[in-house]
Amino acid sequence: MKAIQLKNIALVSVVVLLGMGGCKPKNAASAVDAGAAAKAYVAPGKYDEFYNFVSGGFSGQMSVYGLPSGRLLRVIPVFSVDPEKGWGYSEETKPMLNTSHGFVPWDDLHHTELSQTNGEIDGRWIFANGNNTPRIARVDLSTFRTNEIIEIPNSAGNHSSPFITENTEYVVAGTRFSVPPDNVNGDVPINTYKKNFKGTISFVSVDKTSGNMKIAFQLLCPGVNFDLSHAGKGPSHDWMFFSCYNSEQANTLLEVNASQKDKDFILAVNWKKAEEYLAQGKAKKQSVKYAHNVYDEKTHSATSTIETEVQVLDVKDFPDIAYFIPCPKSPHGCDVDPTGEYIVGSGKLAALIPVFSYTKLQAAIAAKDFIGNFGGIPVVKYESALYGEVKKPGLGPLHTEFDGKGNAYTSFFVSSEIVKWNIKDLKVLDRVPTYYSIGHLCIPGGDSRKPNAKYVIAYNKITKDRYLPTGPELAQSAQLFDISGDKMQLILDFPTIGEPHYAQAVSADLIKTKSVKIFKIEDNFNPYVSKGEGQTKVVRTGNRVDVNMTAIRSHLAPDNIEGIKIGDEVYFHITNLEQDWDVPHGFAIKGSVNAELLIMPGETQTLKWVPDRVGMFPMYCTDFCSALHQEMSGYVRVSPAGSNTKLLFSTGKNLPAADSTGTK
Amino acid sequence: MKAIQLKNIALVSVVVLLGMGGCKPKNAASAVDAGAAAKAYVAPGKYDEFYNFVSGGFSGQMSVYGLPSGRLLRVIPVFSVDPEKGWGYSEETKPMLNTSHGFVPWDDLHHTELSQTNGEIDGRWIFANGNNTPRIARVDLSTFRTNEIIEIPNSAGNHSSPFITENTEYVVAGTRFSVPPDNVNGDVPINTYKKNFKGTISFVSVDKTSGNMKIAFQLLCPGVNFDLSHAGKGPSHDWMFFSCYNSEQANTLLEVNASQKDKDFILAVNWKKAEEYLAQGKAKKQSVKYAHNVYDEKTHSATSTIETEVQVLDVKDFPDIAYFIPCPKSPHGCDVDPTGEYIVGSGKLAALIPVFSYTKLQAAIAAKDFIGNFGGIPVVKYESALYGEVKKPGLGPLHTEFDGKGNAYTSFFVSSEIVKWNIKDLKVLDRVPTYYSIGHLCIPGGDSRKPNAKYVIAYNKITKDRYLPTGPELAQSAQLFDISGDKMQLILDFPTIGEPHYAQAVSADLIKTKSVKIFKIEDNFNPYVSKGEGQTKVVRTGNRVDVNMTAIRSHLAPDNIEGIKIGDEVYFHITNLEQDWDVPHGFAIKGSVNAELLIMPGETQTLKWVPDRVGMFPMYCTDFCSALHQEMSGYVRVSPAGSNTKLLFSTGKNLPAADSTGTK
Repeated sequence: MKAIQLKNIALVSVVVLLGMGGCKPKNAASAVDAGAAAKAYVAPGKYDEFYNFVSGGFSGQMSVYGLPSGRLLRVIPVFSVDPEKGWGYSEETKPMLNTSHGFVPWDDLHHTELSQTNGEIDGRWIFANGNNTPRIARVDLSTFRTNEIIEIPNSAGNHSSPFITENTEYVVAGTRFSVPPDNVNGDVPINTYKKNFKGTISFVSVDKTSGNMKIAFQLLCPGVNFDLSHAGKGPSHDWMFFSCYNSEQANTLLEVNASQKDKDFILAVNWKKAEEYLAQGKAKKQSVKYAHNVYDEKTHSATSTIETEVQVLDVKDFPDIAYFIPCPKSPHGCDVDPTGEYIVGSGKLAALIPVFSYTKLQAAIAAKDFIGNFGGIPVVKYESALYGEVKKPGLGPLHTEFDGKGNAYTSFFVSSEIVKWNIKDLKVLDRVPTYYSIGHLCIPGGDSRKPNAKYVIAYNKITKDRYLPTGPELAQSAQLFDISGDKMQLILDFPTIGEPHYAQAVSADLIKTKSVKIFKIEDNFNPYVSKGEGQTKVVRTGNRVDVNMTAIRSHLAPDNIEGIKIGDEVYFHITNLEQDWDVPHGFAIKGSVNAELLIMPGETQTLKWVPDRVGMFPMYCTDFCSALHQEMSGYVRVSPAGSNTKLLFSTGKNLPAADSTGTK
Repeated sequence: MKAIQLKNIALVSVVVLLGMGGCKPKNAASAVDAGAAAKAYVAPGKYDEFYNFVSGGFSGQMSVYGLPSGRLLRVIPVFSVDPEKGWGYSEETKPMLNTSHGFVPWDDLHHTELSQTNGEIDGRWIFANGNNTPRIARVDLSTFRTNEIIEIPNSAGNHSSPFITENTEYVVAGTRFSVPPDNVNGDVPINTYKKNFKGTISFVSVDKTSGNMKIAFQLLCPGVNFDLSHAGKGPSHDWMFFSCYNSEQANTLLEVNASQKDKDFILAVNWKKAEEYLAQGKAKKQSVKYAHNVYDEKTHSATSTIETEVQVLDVKDFPDIAYFIPCPKSPHGCDVDPTGEYIVGSGKLAALIPVFSYTKLQAAIAAKDFIGNFGGIPVVKYESALYGEVKKPGLGPLHTEFDGKGNAYTSFFVSSEIVKWNIKDLKVLDRVPTYYSIGHLCIPGGDSRKPNAKYVIAYNKITKDRYLPTGPELAQSAQLFDISGDKMQLILDFPTIGEPHYAQAVSADLIKTKSVKIFKIEDNFNPYVSKGEGQTKVVRTGNRVDVNMTAIRSHLAPDNIEGIKIGDEVYFHITNLEQDWDVPHGFAIKGSVNAELLIMPGETQTLKWVPDRVGMFPMYCTDFCSALHQEMSGYVRVSPAGSNTKLLFSTGKNLPAADSTGTK
């Protein structure tokens, strides 16, 4: 009992600290080096040195910053609708947000993960997880667009995702909120958690050429909360490591009930071994429903397919697939150093950092140096897998990145700081305060085999007094530190879009040269493309009206349309005929209960419009495209249902009134 | 004929220039002063000196930047849904986006306008226009939230809006795309434009205390394209000036057909005179339909009311309300200097800038120095109203702001530059290139009686090679120039969110001290508030289930809910019990075809959820709020329709399985 009381006291102190919204570091007014301005400044017209891909958290999107300037270059719509870009509103993009639950306009994007080849960032794709309705997205780094989203069945709270293996063989997805699997009756009392709730870990394969994702297999695991993950590297290439908390298997007031044990676990998964069982046909096929959405750059449109089967391996039936390693306390981050030898577990309620050795883990497994099992999975003896502990590094360690020079950088939420320590001797080398309550941190390539350790960036949860106040809601923020020297040097604070969680950065050279500037009009295979004004037309099929329209500086064609009637469903298929970079056109029509279209050069996008009243509806280009942009507009006349107004469309010809049968 | 040919040739040259996406200034590699970095740099933890409120253009939102750092402090949702904040998704905010057409998820926000007292910015509210489905919004600068949106009937393309009179008596709204008025049959041939299409100008009054808006009156005007506007000041206080193009009254291919005439107009409106006629009961009451949406900070919820009447004055029947002033060529910007004497018209196809004199205009009106009328409105003789012309200032002048020291700064889209000139002698004093194709520009207070002329900011339409490429879609951008000396000095390029049009800046001192930090829980009158966990409950009324829930670090109460059934509509009413700044909580539930809630301290927000399947649905806090944030979660059990699972809810107690009638 005494031990438990002590634990609870420790917990209370943490909670008290939390009540303060993270501690304010003592040297809050710490001096910024006089050279900091010059280091952060990128002169007008100059490029930043790094792309920084930052998760949008509860915005559901991904943002792209330049470093060192901290300038927001782009917000990429991923899991949430974006009326600005017509994302989720155009007919072409609606399927991207389809799920087995229907069209979902939002999700919670936590982690970004750049594709890798041989453990190094290759600049092809970046993946992202959706937490709430479990999904993984793939963004193409030539277009900076979300090209694929796959839903994850048998899961909930897809948090330990989309971490990646060294050759992008797989992105993974772990269940944060265990649930009854989809194939059993989930209508069970919540307090039957221990019996009925399971966590799955999904391995989603990535096609080497197209990048297309497929759920290769799922591992059925005991009901706990899988939290974060990282792949092995080099010698540990075949392994993936997942942290988990709530090994108490509590189902209510987790704040208290999932903080009871001294240690939870890191789950070490031998995915190569799982592949073998899969090849042997030992996985069980399970009927499920999940959406798989793919955007086709040739047709400029997406399709959503509901898939109906996954292959599941119950880990308790395959004892050499997975092993639990005890890890103090409520572990969050689970990070593997560039050599692949060291696995760092960050217990968010711990006051030390355990560093596990891949070599020792293998020896312990070989020797069956187990202290028992949890849910049928062997539990390796803590000391047998442990390389050593970083003692008293700070309070509330969350995440660790690496500089490739033998050093680790760990973020501490509760004590609001970054601590640099040496991996070999586990000694603390430096610490800097962060403002405030840092979550993730990022070194370019800092979770790969080849970090580019010029900067570390802190992503903080609280900004409070750091920026001009903006009412009750404040931006969350990032802080840029120069780590080229022995000591970390604060250079810049910059606010972020949404809620930054994990972020990755990469040298701009790897991406900037292959950025697509326009879509070639001759390669546009959208079924409603108009490859020139001569191909524009308005076609009625029952109450469906298709308007094949073009946009080019500075007019829409057609720009006068008559003969639309109440009850019609009108589809504006707009092709942007421009073939120059940075000349998008937009499209909107008055009173539409829809968003706009934002159409890139050479692209076709479609807006559905159901007119709600008789009258005259202006339409226009919404993107200031030229000095005569304000003139880029037109009219659609809407007549009553059953009227005999003729279908007419033209540009510049001025429809003859005699051809119309209007009332005036 | 010769004159027309010449005009068309001039037009062609402009179009050719446009084809280049704006000219690249000759000195594109212009040196940035060595001190620029220090001038733009705001050290970590330091506040910016100015708030810069920037329109989001086709994003429909408003963004708030700090100056001189160019850091994005906040995006305020206005006309477009924002799934991140639940804007347009929570039950409380849905009414804000209602219109006479129904719920509209998007608009095109072009102009920001800070409230004024005696012609000076007073820091109370900022207004914004919606172009596509004509509306005006009011944002409260203590909370940085949109508190009111009013729809404008009898109008389309609400562009010349929401410019403001000196004491915020009115914000105005002018029709960019003339249409048949709402009370006539609009089912007319488009080519009857000259006969049937009208432009209205609306004067929307603003309550001095509450800020609440009301359409005071509308002026029925000839069918043209009203474009921009500014109020008189001091001596010209009673007047409002509106630019218009398309006095050709073309209805197709405006690029050519609305660019025929040498001069279009500025419309000078004597709104005091209009008030008199209104008081005399001379306005016609017209039946219309428009939405008026108000957010109540006491209940934390909005209501939408459909209004049914406006009062209209047909200007041709009241010859002393309005006068046209000829203005070359296709005028866009219409700006009034701080003294109120000079009105600057910027013809986007003109190669000079006319400056009109308020004094001369009044004399010309008194002398009836008219050259005829247009649509029944007297046209003042150009020379009689003209103070003088700025000769050869650049190509494609768009907008002018003022420094309060007798100088004007005009943006030139086609020649991509800002030109500084003296108002008295009309001489050009300085010019700087912009990168590229500048639209609006902004000096803090630069359209008020009291500019704070430290900076001018250029808002550019094209960025092309200025930032790291991000695929076909690039950010638009701003450039900050120091104008404290005689010559403009470029300090910083920073990309912007959405499409920046007009922007205003104000000294931070005017706003930062009155920023609301939390909503007091005792002042929360939301009907579903829980002012403590003791007030939480789950109540079934037929198939409607109301969950009165609380969020406080680090748990939801209740966090276990059973007895929800298929066919139910569940309303989660979440009160954030925190009373500290910067401790929001978020809320989401798996598979919901809805967004999240983001709930500020002391606030209640409601998410509607219709479960789509039987099973177990995790819910959680989406905003990383504490070290135990990951534990802030719970479960909702959904049973089949007609099942007899008992309604149960609890936190930490663990529901007794015996009370449930689950199948296991």
